[in-house]
Amino acid sequence: MERAGSGAEGNRFQREEDLLRRVQSLLHRPEPHVVTGIGDDCAVLALPGAVDHLLVSTDLLLEHIHFELHQQTFQQLGYKALAVNLSDLAAMGADPLAVFVSLCLPRRCAASDIEALYTGMEELARSVGASIVGGDTSASADSLMLSLTVLGLAPPAAVVRRSGAQPGDRLFVTGTLGDAAAGLEFLQRQDTEPPASANPAAAASGPPAGFPEAVVRQLAQRYRLPRPRLSEGRWLARGGFASAMLDLSDGLSTDLHRLCEASRVGARLVLQDLPRSTALEAAAAFLQHGTEHYTLHGGEDYELLAAVPAERRETLLAQWPFRDTLLMEIGWVVPPQQGVKLITLAEREEVLPPGGFDHFAPG
Amino acid sequence: MERAGSGAEGNRFQREEDLLRRVQSLLHRPEPHVVTGIGDDCAVLALPGAVDHLLVSTDLLLEHIHFELHQQTFQQLGYKALAVNLSDLAAMGADPLAVFVSLCLPRRCAASDIEALYTGMEELARSVGASIVGGDTSASADSLMLSLTVLGLAPPAAVVRRSGAQPGDRLFVTGTLGDAAAGLEFLQRQDTEPPASANPAAAASGPPAGFPEAVVRQLAQRYRLPRPRLSEGRWLARGGFASAMLDLSDGLSTDLHRLCEASRVGARLVLQDLPRSTALEAAAAFLQHGTEHYTLHGGEDYELLAAVPAERRETLLAQWPFRDTLLMEIGWVVPPQQGVKLITLAEREEVLPPGGFDHFAPG
Repeated sequence: MERAGSGAEGNRFQREEDLLRRVQSLLHRPEPHVVTGIGDDCAVLALPGAVDHLLVSTDLLLEHIHFELHQQTFQQLGYKALAVNLSDLAAMGADPLAVFVSLCLPRRCAASDIEALYTGMEELARSVGASIVGGDTSASADSLMLSLTVLGLAPPAAVVRRSGAQPGDRLFVTGTLGDAAAGLEFLQRQDTEPPASANPAAAASGPPAGFPEAVVRQLAQRYRLPRPRLSEGRWLARGGFASAMLDLSDGLSTDLHRLCEASRVGARLVLQDLPRSTALEAAAAFLQHGTEHYTLHGGEDYELLAAVPAERRETLLAQWPFRDTLLMEIGWVVPPQQGVKLITLAEREEVLPPGGFDHFAPG
Repeated sequence: MERAGSGAEGNRFQREEDLLRRVQSLLHRPEPHVVTGIGDDCAVLALPGAVDHLLVSTDLLLEHIHFELHQQTFQQLGYKALAVNLSDLAAMGADPLAVFVSLCLPRRCAASDIEALYTGMEELARSVGASIVGGDTSASADSLMLSLTVLGLAPPAAVVRRSGAQPGDRLFVTGTLGDAAAGLEFLQRQDTEPPASANPAAAASGPPAGFPEAVVRQLAQRYRLPRPRLSEGRWLARGGFASAMLDLSDGLSTDLHRLCEASRVGARLVLQDLPRSTALEAAAAFLQHGTEHYTLHGGEDYELLAAVPAERRETLLAQWPFRDTLLMEIGWVVPPQQGVKLITLAEREEVLPPGGFDHFAPG
């Protein structure tokens, strides 16, 4: 999980992928029970005799890197730490099974804070039929750290990887995009702008006229409490709709590049079709960038991006059973030499670099 | 994994057990596929159709809490992080399968340091037939943190828990005890004593007469490079020798109490039978405490403590196939009301509190 929308994030992503490649070159060829190793949302293991494949994902959240403590409650933080892990299972169509929780706890954390963390995790785990069954805790000299590992199950034929997209496939996305990044931007501005009590003049003037406070709260909740799309992922995978899938953790442009790289394809993304919430529209005048910046590059939405064979498109749209979850067709897959491009509102094709940074422009 | 031999460790242990109990009270009763949940060395899961049970353990190592960077190389640190996780699989008789590695990396870590970390893990993983197949990495504002999760397999009938010991069982331990704690003490004294260059007088006088440098290096290696007793644990479990087992991470006295608590039994430990290495004996004159302090309370040995039914004792001793691994009978199991006691060299029975701290005295 990466923080959204800064140049530093871009650099980190680049270095992390480099590191991953170097590390992979050190490792031996995995044993035959390893169906999918490093490089997808989950590792996939085939255990002797088991009906289902075992899927495993691990994600860590570190204070000052992935979150600041004052931006959510401990219960919300516990919820989110598990939600982002479950999102990886969702992206491959798996059912959650078990959760392992490792925590580094600074001494300033009270027992009640730790209980609240576990309460947030437990409520989400219970609601998806998974159990917290192990972990480790340690004192920490400085930051709070949560490292979660989730196990899930999926029928071997229904495990969806990043690598299965084919030219001609349609690209679909669940939910709306960019809300979490916009919500985080407002939370960060609250940090840098002086509080009302310290600045009576600002307090007297209040927030700018028309500032949509309820809407901003709504966007902040999308950042704090992402909903892992487990049912949707399972349905897309088991119905044979998704040829490739991943969850949007680092922003659509970055994650689309990951899907394209894994599948060795290119893509066309139609800017006008990217789903944005009414909350994002309502907050537009108060954001630092245009709304398309958030929908294209904003991280931490944890929505699903799926490639769907063209012949399955009509059935998918006719049978989509999730009334509360938007499903939008946002583009299509092309051969690799045609690259990853955005179709603008003026219907021009523009190269779409991951994260919107020029130094990531595809070769 | 806890640091050995300080009052602070005792307090942390007490709080950690309290925390574990509070957390467990928040969690729902696990789903039926969870055979063993929180409280043993590994969680045990029964997957539909699978021949073996799946065993999962997770352990974290945090700079300044569990290690200091200058006390070992990055490669040794990587080795150790995996070794202590594998030791949990050994304690339940499982074969290692897959490893997940999550790292928080401070910016002062060079790419070559990170490669060395993975090299240490990879060499050990390969040697035990396991693959590193996933993980997560993050930048860290301050400390280095390694959070590993290991998966293993064991036949359902051969999974050994902490809870199976019965009065009359004999207590056995592999290897020698206290070496790691003694090694750590020497490493820590090197930190607090001024280096030779800053103190020419000390340099001139050199180490005290007869200081056994080679022996100290040997003890330090036991701290840096613990050997997970996978073959021994597997043999004890699959041969039906161990009724209960755990690995000695926090010191014999503390871990024996854990085994007794889980099995609802008491124990007698014969001080004179505790196995100590010739290295520990050779270093005795230069240690802060008597050698029995290290054998009884020193942490991080990662040897196995097993309860063995009395009628299996002769067969065990006759068939033990590991010529390079000492196996010592060190006591026996008694009914719970008889408590956990040490039989001293003078053949007196003394209450044995975990960690040697009075505030842990059993009720």
